[in-house]
Amino acid sequence: MTQAVVDTVSETEATRLEPLFAPHSIAVVGASRTPGSVGNAILSNLVFGGFTGVIYPVNPKAKSILGNRCVPSVAAIDDHVDLGVIIVPAVHVQGVVAAFAEKGTRHFIVISAGFKEVGGDGVKREQDLKALADERGLTIVGPNCLGIINTAPTVAMNATFGRGMPEAGPFGLISQSGALCTALLDYAKGVGIGFSRFVSFGNKVAVSENDLLLALAADPLTKAILMYVEELSHGQAFIETCHKITHGSNPKPIIAIKTGRTQEGAAAAASHTGSLAGRDEVYDAVLAQAGVRRVDSVKELFDCAEVFVDPMLPQGRRTAVVTNAGGPGIMATDACIRSGMSLARFQEYTLKSLRYQLPPTSSLKNPVDVIGDAKHDRYRAALDAVSSDEGVDQVLVIVTPQTMTDVTAIADVIREAKSFCGKPIVGCLMGLVDVSAGVQLLRKHGVPAYAFPEDAMRAMAAKCRFAEWTRQASLSYKHFDVDRDAVARLLDEELAAGRSTLVELKALEVFRHYGFPIVPYALADSAEAAARAAVQIGFPVVLKISGPKILHKTDVGGVRLGLNDEGAVRAAFEEMVGTVRQKMGADVEVWGVLVQKMLPKGKEVILGMSRDPRMGPLLMFGLGGIYTEALKDVSFRLAPIRENVALEMTMNIRAHRLLRGFRGEPAADMPAIADCLLRLSQLVTEHERIKELDINPLIVFAAGQGAMVADARVILAP
Amino acid sequence: MTQAVVDTVSETEATRLEPLFAPHSIAVVGASRTPGSVGNAILSNLVFGGFTGVIYPVNPKAKSILGNRCVPSVAAIDDHVDLGVIIVPAVHVQGVVAAFAEKGTRHFIVISAGFKEVGGDGVKREQDLKALADERGLTIVGPNCLGIINTAPTVAMNATFGRGMPEAGPFGLISQSGALCTALLDYAKGVGIGFSRFVSFGNKVAVSENDLLLALAADPLTKAILMYVEELSHGQAFIETCHKITHGSNPKPIIAIKTGRTQEGAAAAASHTGSLAGRDEVYDAVLAQAGVRRVDSVKELFDCAEVFVDPMLPQGRRTAVVTNAGGPGIMATDACIRSGMSLARFQEYTLKSLRYQLPPTSSLKNPVDVIGDAKHDRYRAALDAVSSDEGVDQVLVIVTPQTMTDVTAIADVIREAKSFCGKPIVGCLMGLVDVSAGVQLLRKHGVPAYAFPEDAMRAMAAKCRFAEWTRQASLSYKHFDVDRDAVARLLDEELAAGRSTLVELKALEVFRHYGFPIVPYALADSAEAAARAAVQIGFPVVLKISGPKILHKTDVGGVRLGLNDEGAVRAAFEEMVGTVRQKMGADVEVWGVLVQKMLPKGKEVILGMSRDPRMGPLLMFGLGGIYTEALKDVSFRLAPIRENVALEMTMNIRAHRLLRGFRGEPAADMPAIADCLLRLSQLVTEHERIKELDINPLIVFAAGQGAMVADARVILAP
Repeated sequence: MTQAVVDTVSETEATRLEPLFAPHSIAVVGASRTPGSVGNAILSNLVFGGFTGVIYPVNPKAKSILGNRCVPSVAAIDDHVDLGVIIVPAVHVQGVVAAFAEKGTRHFIVISAGFKEVGGDGVKREQDLKALADERGLTIVGPNCLGIINTAPTVAMNATFGRGMPEAGPFGLISQSGALCTALLDYAKGVGIGFSRFVSFGNKVAVSENDLLLALAADPLTKAILMYVEELSHGQAFIETCHKITHGSNPKPIIAIKTGRTQEGAAAAASHTGSLAGRDEVYDAVLAQAGVRRVDSVKELFDCAEVFVDPMLPQGRRTAVVTNAGGPGIMATDACIRSGMSLARFQEYTLKSLRYQLPPTSSLKNPVDVIGDAKHDRYRAALDAVSSDEGVDQVLVIVTPQTMTDVTAIADVIREAKSFCGKPIVGCLMGLVDVSAGVQLLRKHGVPAYAFPEDAMRAMAAKCRFAEWTRQASLSYKHFDVDRDAVARLLDEELAAGRSTLVELKALEVFRHYGFPIVPYALADSAEAAARAAVQIGFPVVLKISGPKILHKTDVGGVRLGLNDEGAVRAAFEEMVGTVRQKMGADVEVWGVLVQKMLPKGKEVILGMSRDPRMGPLLMFGLGGIYTEALKDVSFRLAPIRENVALEMTMNIRAHRLLRGFRGEPAADMPAIADCLLRLSQLVTEHERIKELDINPLIVFAAGQGAMVADARVILAP
Repeated sequence: MTQAVVDTVSETEATRLEPLFAPHSIAVVGASRTPGSVGNAILSNLVFGGFTGVIYPVNPKAKSILGNRCVPSVAAIDDHVDLGVIIVPAVHVQGVVAAFAEKGTRHFIVISAGFKEVGGDGVKREQDLKALADERGLTIVGPNCLGIINTAPTVAMNATFGRGMPEAGPFGLISQSGALCTALLDYAKGVGIGFSRFVSFGNKVAVSENDLLLALAADPLTKAILMYVEELSHGQAFIETCHKITHGSNPKPIIAIKTGRTQEGAAAAASHTGSLAGRDEVYDAVLAQAGVRRVDSVKELFDCAEVFVDPMLPQGRRTAVVTNAGGPGIMATDACIRSGMSLARFQEYTLKSLRYQLPPTSSLKNPVDVIGDAKHDRYRAALDAVSSDEGVDQVLVIVTPQTMTDVTAIADVIREAKSFCGKPIVGCLMGLVDVSAGVQLLRKHGVPAYAFPEDAMRAMAAKCRFAEWTRQASLSYKHFDVDRDAVARLLDEELAAGRSTLVELKALEVFRHYGFPIVPYALADSAEAAARAAVQIGFPVVLKISGPKILHKTDVGGVRLGLNDEGAVRAAFEEMVGTVRQKMGADVEVWGVLVQKMLPKGKEVILGMSRDPRMGPLLMFGLGGIYTEALKDVSFRLAPIRENVALEMTMNIRAHRLLRGFRGEPAADMPAIADCLLRLSQLVTEHERIKELDINPLIVFAAGQGAMVADARVILAP
């Protein structure tokens, strides 16, 4: 999908799915009287969950189930059905959906398994279902899923076969794994986490994660979106969807567990980029570009979400800590610095106020230690002082349950401070049992609450980063005026000639058409022509043999460096052609010799692209030589990239300070690299036949002096 | 403390503290009738915790407290008191301890605050208390602590002012922060974690963390030792203590939260090593050398400990996973690979057995997916098959609570499998509420239980590493035959002459006395002598000016490279001396010119040392140039180091593959580097006046061809 298509996702797209979440009438096909069966569990969840609409159990053999009068068939329902929930065996699903479609029902949850995931006939069944959906414009969640929950009191729909209704709460969750959903629901019940909407989306036959993300974004009760995903349907569409959700006047954070981190790229790759781009690097790049927080565990998922029960975003990273114990204060400080936040330095008036109100043994410096015997009044004094300090962006309040500690009263002070101070305040009520009333109080009033300071601080850091992301000017895609057709023709010719790996000469041509700065070069077919070209280009020059089959020039004696006059060039030409013919056979096709300017010293960097079959073109950036090959110190992003992403790529390698003028060397020309990355992005977006490429090296000169492509290879999809 | 001292820690040391944990009689001085007071809370905990010995509340004003008859003073107790618990104001503590000592009591817990931690008089009070302890051979935990708990049923002692008695369990915990203890106890109560022994050790006046670690190691009810520490008392003693505990016939794991990760080293440092060695690098090195698992959060602490409720260690890293859902299986796989474990490949007989017993839609490859409708019999079949596979070292069993899932019955199958299979098995019962009975069943039978697969797998990986650590041959400290006295004299002379930074010539001499391979060199005081020396050394040579104040030789024109004959050496000598005198003044003291062999190409590495005021000499290793300076890619260990640690240091940098023959280059001579590190370890251990040093570079040649010190500096403590 190109950018143009992505941008057409409209506001109506977000509400198109609403009947899935807020139907007035539901028909459950496969509803069953047998306790323990899926068909019974779903009906039971709908009934006892308090669904506010009308339920039609479809079962030809039963008169009623759980008190609800059954209808014998879909056709027999004498009402419009907003949502069909289907639990019948896989082979019957297609017929049931078709019957509903006849009646005008457009929205479905297909719980039944036995489709793509079982292989064989199941794949065909899924294709048929998709065809039906496309043809009739149906919205189908599943198949092979747990169902959908909407806890909004006006709906109160639990259309899943999970165990019971979760509490209402601020989190929307979508998950590709149904089983994980059951576990998450059970865990959430135990720790008191509530959900707004909950979707197990299964095989994604006709509703993708992107559709669901938009639906959750549009839901006013959802403050943070959580997702578990095993594979994304389309990289760039996902990036654009998330970009939209995480920006604008009401940005919502998205936190994701993406599994399959360690799977290796399937195919052996011919380029550096290809060999370095494992599947997981693709996803890291996509999630970073999308502004999605990637976490590794369910604990982290919920910890990170918790901080968003308060939608207020911090204005900066300066964090104040108030605590009644030193150790947890140190833990908070550690986590603060480690996660890239800073400890606020208090203004003089704050210190004065603290000094005046706290006992002399208190520590006034951040973290403020109000001492173990502090009661709620002392917390109030400290909180008032630090939260009104103009150098403080957010506050963490730590309470350890000591002998004198009135945890719930202190929680109420935190709530009170939160209500008027205009900055994010987070509570850390340490422990679990004695502090639980305080935790409930905080959550109820939209104050995030944690058991341990390191978890709280990590989440606060995630919120800071989200705040920065939402404020970041969303730069556009730069469009360069290039000779797109010339490249298309060149690729045609090469493919027609059966050459899927472009030799240097052809590769340089491709990049020249896209306006890359190329080292000056000319193709010479005789010693005399080479000498003339060298004079025109200027000495010193490099000679490189060029021919359609000569891929490894150095191995056959086809490269000569540092030639300083015409005589040397003539001699090198003759000798080189001779050597190459000797090594590769007298009949090897030689186009001539590439005469190139020998460049002055600069920093060598590598730019590359490897096309991921599902996600699209993945751009790579790294320093040349061992940095890329041995240290694997490279950064990836999915093309097309926005302007700021190009610079970001150059920053995201460990060795980036080597480009910024280390040890008295001049800084490298970073904008020149960014410009090349943006051109590369356009090139690979406009030519899908390019499978992989490397510019290796791009020589980068000092700031303001540009960069030059010195060598390159391009590999086409045959 | 030197190695010899450390090795004298005897078995009796471990039991010396037993009266702290299992006293027959306790006197509580400062016991109070006032509910909510510390003096009341401790007595109440002792009484209601079910202490099996006799309690003497000491209170001159009350007849009894909580039914226990009071005594008016320490002297009035007509019985031997094993343990004195002291809660009186700080100023009275000294007197109370002295009174006990008169009666023959040797063990104390001083709860009272108001010592070192408040500064001022408190510091003096603590010194006095320490003096008394030393003089009378007293064992004192605290002051400024929460107290001690021993849940062993034969003792049942809760001598803390925490809220209630924790459950008995397999974990021993020591903590420097009392407040954190209260939070940990409360959290543990909530999630059902039990403790064997629990110590809040406060200011460590006369009992260090090392003493307590040994006491926990000696306790048969403690299976894993947890610690929270803000600073360690002595690096090498800690390493030796932990080394002992984590090796031998009954090794116990130690898991630590060490805060203060982000504090920077206090003093500005003159060497590379000094500037790179922040406080936290010291602790990372010490904890790694000690075999202690460092974690960042309380959650990780408990997660990692949980896996040791089963003391059986895995024989290798090959892990099998059995699950009833695909998603969690992928999460487990990810965590498995990411934490350095491997997924077991099943033998043919295992696959056959699985194929025969599981339904056809099951996935037989590891992870084994027994499918969502699996009941306990199917789990039993799968577990029997994979746990008896000879290619499997450990098994993770994942259970998601689906409609058909009989969680508790499956938990019982896991327990049963664990009881006969002879390999570690870990349960992951996903969720919290519905699975809780299963979790309790597993824990009760010594099977670790987790809520999520990523947490389980990380802990299993930690256990694998611990198993490898315990199996690792514990190599000795190598002692080289060196000229220690010559170095001592040289350092004496330099310090006497007021020079705390040794110039290259002197530094090279130091290393020569310790048997380092040094680039051949000679000091010449005339052009003629230089030429003669060059002939003897062999061309090409390097000349470097040498004088007591000439520290930056290159800046004053004092270095000349690549001199190929006698004439060039003579000319360079004259010119160099002239230039240096011109730049530094005619009267600058010049000892002469250092004539050095110009070395053939090799890998440049840096060896260094920076002495941490508290922890001792910290060795550093890194590659030369930008790797160390810009990329900060270095490894640290505390000297003295064992033989295997030297090689480990060379492996622990990101760029280590550059030393192992990358891109067809020959591998570097690693044993030669290790040899230099071991000599360095001996040098800095034997000469405490060396404050910092760098060998920069050590040129390392191809395997078997050695290494040579090319330049070095040594900084002395004035």
